[in-house]
Amino acid sequence: MLAGWPAFLAAAPDVGALVFDVFGTVVDWRSSLIREGEQLGKSKGLRVDWVKFADAWRAGYGPAMNRVRQGELPWTRIDALHRMILDRLIEEFRISALSEAEKDHLNRAWHRLTPWPDAVSGLTRLKKRFVIATLSNGNVSLLTNMAKHAGLPWDCILSAELAKRYKPDREVYLMAAGLLGLAPGRVMMVAAHKQDLRAAREAGLKTAFVPRPLEFGPQGTVDATPDAAFDVHAGDFRDLADKMGA
Amino acid sequence: MLAGWPAFLAAAPDVGALVFDVFGTVVDWRSSLIREGEQLGKSKGLRVDWVKFADAWRAGYGPAMNRVRQGELPWTRIDALHRMILDRLIEEFRISALSEAEKDHLNRAWHRLTPWPDAVSGLTRLKKRFVIATLSNGNVSLLTNMAKHAGLPWDCILSAELAKRYKPDREVYLMAAGLLGLAPGRVMMVAAHKQDLRAAREAGLKTAFVPRPLEFGPQGTVDATPDAAFDVHAGDFRDLADKMGA
Repeated sequence: MLAGWPAFLAAAPDVGALVFDVFGTVVDWRSSLIREGEQLGKSKGLRVDWVKFADAWRAGYGPAMNRVRQGELPWTRIDALHRMILDRLIEEFRISALSEAEKDHLNRAWHRLTPWPDAVSGLTRLKKRFVIATLSNGNVSLLTNMAKHAGLPWDCILSAELAKRYKPDREVYLMAAGLLGLAPGRVMMVAAHKQDLRAAREAGLKTAFVPRPLEFGPQGTVDATPDAAFDVHAGDFRDLADKMGA
Repeated sequence: MLAGWPAFLAAAPDVGALVFDVFGTVVDWRSSLIREGEQLGKSKGLRVDWVKFADAWRAGYGPAMNRVRQGELPWTRIDALHRMILDRLIEEFRISALSEAEKDHLNRAWHRLTPWPDAVSGLTRLKKRFVIATLSNGNVSLLTNMAKHAGLPWDCILSAELAKRYKPDREVYLMAAGLLGLAPGRVMMVAAHKQDLRAAREAGLKTAFVPRPLEFGPQGTVDATPDAAFDVHAGDFRDLADKMGA
């Protein structure tokens, strides 16, 4: 348990499946993107501030999804949204030396993100007791490739792509419960982001809050305060496994 | 290689993902259903010919799906089709002693089918080189539970349910390639059934034929003759791994 967290964290709810937000909750997108950028910069002799680049890439993601959610863009998978943002950043950061194949490889850095240190071991324990699945705005192939690359032991890849709606749209959460053959109340959403959990809760799912204080880097700010609206609070995935009796 | 198979079985095609038919191709539905029936019969003191029962249950499956394919029934997942057939068979075989919970448990025997002896080891080898996914008419929760029960190491669960169309409808094969982020020609359909492979081929997928001579039991008849239209012929999944260089 996180030090100082209150005592409303009671017995584990009776659920059959846990579904996980991925970017930020399971994988450390920021360190991974910075590392990939630095490697590319070294090999191509680029002078780019890859920390700023990574943060700008991620910052473009919410607004791009909102354009889809508001109907301004037709359904567009994350790979294509990431690429739209990347093409803009390549101009803004004045990166001129990349071939199409190199741009595509860089765009797929999102398929190669590294898990938080507790993620694989925590998921492996949780998998023994529950069905564990992704429930991410990442597209199916991105999540599948990431799992293969990082050894994430998912039972099933679920994605906003299957509903052609992005979280926090209600349909995404209900789709997940439907595909898992469970009532919404027997599915638990696990996320580091309160907005995701609040929408899951409104759709009838159980919720587990696992804040990731380093998601936006050592200087980043993260809302890690507990909230009595959520069913479980955990410090990481091993703590979540403990709390869920797995 | 199957004895006597011709020499048109050439080099492995360049594919990124293998998608698998499941009932009959990966799992031995018939032995599994007979075994579950016999266990239930023993515990409940039922006198039922479980071999006939299993064959009748499977025989009802194609016609039930065709009712959906032809629009006579709205989209209905396999769990519900299996249950419709089961309810009819319970009457025909004059089985009176089952509670609703026992009927539901029996219906979920399809979630607990046992793999052919070569399946897990062959898939484990193939997974090292390719993305491996189901592409079954079984629903997502059935396939997810089956994988968990049987230790099938899928990277991704793909199902006709995601297209709300049943194989051999073309949309199912194209959906799989789309979700995997691959051109149809870089996806290989693996099946024990020629109808499935022919439809996959027409949709542009590569094909691997793995006949399962015992699918319908020792007395059953199976078309295991090779066909030059398919890209690969294999005797089992270990042979398939050999032929695909995995």
